[in-house]
Amino acid sequence: MKGHVVVTGGAGFIGSNLVDTLLKDGFSVTVIDNFSTGFRRYLNADNVRVVQRDITCAKPDDLAVDFVGAEAVYHLAANADVRHGWKHPRLDHEQNLVATLNVLDACEKADVPDVVFSSTGSVYGETREIPTPERAMFPLQTSLYAASKVAAEAFLQAHAAAGRVRATIFRFVSVLGPRYSHGHVFDFMWQLRRSPDRLRILGDGTQRKSYMHVDDCVAALMSLRPAGDLEVFNLGTDGFCTVSDSATWISARLGLQPTYEFTGGDRGWIGDNPFIYLDVSKAATAGWRTRKTIKESVEETVDWLVENEWIFDAR
Amino acid sequence: MKGHVVVTGGAGFIGSNLVDTLLKDGFSVTVIDNFSTGFRRYLNADNVRVVQRDITCAKPDDLAVDFVGAEAVYHLAANADVRHGWKHPRLDHEQNLVATLNVLDACEKADVPDVVFSSTGSVYGETREIPTPERAMFPLQTSLYAASKVAAEAFLQAHAAAGRVRATIFRFVSVLGPRYSHGHVFDFMWQLRRSPDRLRILGDGTQRKSYMHVDDCVAALMSLRPAGDLEVFNLGTDGFCTVSDSATWISARLGLQPTYEFTGGDRGWIGDNPFIYLDVSKAATAGWRTRKTIKESVEETVDWLVENEWIFDAR
Repeated sequence: MKGHVVVTGGAGFIGSNLVDTLLKDGFSVTVIDNFSTGFRRYLNADNVRVVQRDITCAKPDDLAVDFVGAEAVYHLAANADVRHGWKHPRLDHEQNLVATLNVLDACEKADVPDVVFSSTGSVYGETREIPTPERAMFPLQTSLYAASKVAAEAFLQAHAAAGRVRATIFRFVSVLGPRYSHGHVFDFMWQLRRSPDRLRILGDGTQRKSYMHVDDCVAALMSLRPAGDLEVFNLGTDGFCTVSDSATWISARLGLQPTYEFTGGDRGWIGDNPFIYLDVSKAATAGWRTRKTIKESVEETVDWLVENEWIFDAR
Repeated sequence: MKGHVVVTGGAGFIGSNLVDTLLKDGFSVTVIDNFSTGFRRYLNADNVRVVQRDITCAKPDDLAVDFVGAEAVYHLAANADVRHGWKHPRLDHEQNLVATLNVLDACEKADVPDVVFSSTGSVYGETREIPTPERAMFPLQTSLYAASKVAAEAFLQAHAAAGRVRATIFRFVSVLGPRYSHGHVFDFMWQLRRSPDRLRILGDGTQRKSYMHVDDCVAALMSLRPAGDLEVFNLGTDGFCTVSDSATWISARLGLQPTYEFTGGDRGWIGDNPFIYLDVSKAATAGWRTRKTIKESVEETVDWLVENEWIFDAR
């Protein structure tokens, strides 16, 4: 038996995949989730203690009790809805920043030495350095989501600089794979279930994105740690596709030939980054490799969604 | 008569100097201040409406009422205590970020088109690019103060990117001049008032800092605006001094020859940046020039503190 760890958002897409792998590796795990977008059915293993708690409004003392005895907190609980930030302009701040401050306070109280944080490649804003390295130019933020993540990173960095915690910050591209329930593959499948002969695509389809398989993501979260108190790692596949590529792969996998209807413009929504492609050589130097291509990741996601149609009704 | 503007933190050091210049230029001004560190005696002019309100916990609707009719909000209210962040670890978040979110919400409600924001050169963390330009490398934060400022910047940027406000972000070096009441000149004078023959200096005295006169700062705040929706400007003097230089100038101005006692180390406190020196060529290209040297600014600060001893008892 290895040690004990906490996974916030452990009932979610990435979180529950992480929990499964942690258990397989012999860790005991406490999951903290408010089940706003996570599912209890993902947490049916032994050695998982499940706490239903909203970290956003949790008292640090209560959270500290959940954290006692953990050697690390994987803080994945977050609002991941990048597109709809302006409908609830305070949501990203509360769920992505305040929640992180609460986690940091509880780590301090419970003497948890390590925090692993899921940030986003969106923090690079509209950088022109592509593929984008971790120490790209000081970016300008274009969405509330990315603003809240860069804010959370900043507070984690300050805590690490003060020696209060060891922080590993991962800036992800979008993640695909089993239990995926949010993003363009989901949206496209949702549409094609209702009308298999046409597909509405936000933007002009040329937006380039780099996706990563959740297994590759989980492997990085578990294996990469700072030499000192702080490290930032980009995570992504060394490559990219266009939204149209992905639409083609999805349609082919489903045996469909829909007509594409593009809404036009070079980005899908306000604050959408037209091209996120990260330089992952730092993580590679530290020993991490992706095993799945973007196409394989898209296809595996399609297969999982076909086998798990319940999720279209559960959202 | 020019238009109407709001100055948050308008009873503070920089804020009240800004208010005086705005009034001189013909603006009518609403000051919003909680008077936690500001002084009513600075606001004795006509054409100033003073609202005592804590922006941190203000309801956006109440704040919006204060903002109605303003063409711009100069958002200077902040916790400026960089050194003592860890005594109250949530203070920077609340006073520097939540307050800014409240200002942004109120601007939206009251249709205020422009926000002018006082950020800090500390957001560059321990950059090796010196003098540091606005688009330096993506920094790692070293203090809660800088983390909260970079977080506020990020949300301002997202609001500007969405076309909800025009934002001018100023990253300051430390500011000196009349009404200065916080920082190393204040600390040194405080010590020398009690014991004129010795001066305790945090660090080894070699920390290099770039200071700016408040009149130069105010001139930039009032004159520099974005071409589009967003601009970030560094503000500082094109030069720097060491903490020891400053101690020498202060002592000489006071006619004293104290013995220096250095606490040692290359920085004054946890999270202190040993060297902040900003590349201000962007602001210079936009037409801004400093008129006071660092030495002149230090000496003028000393003179003001000598003439305003009340402030040592008022803090």
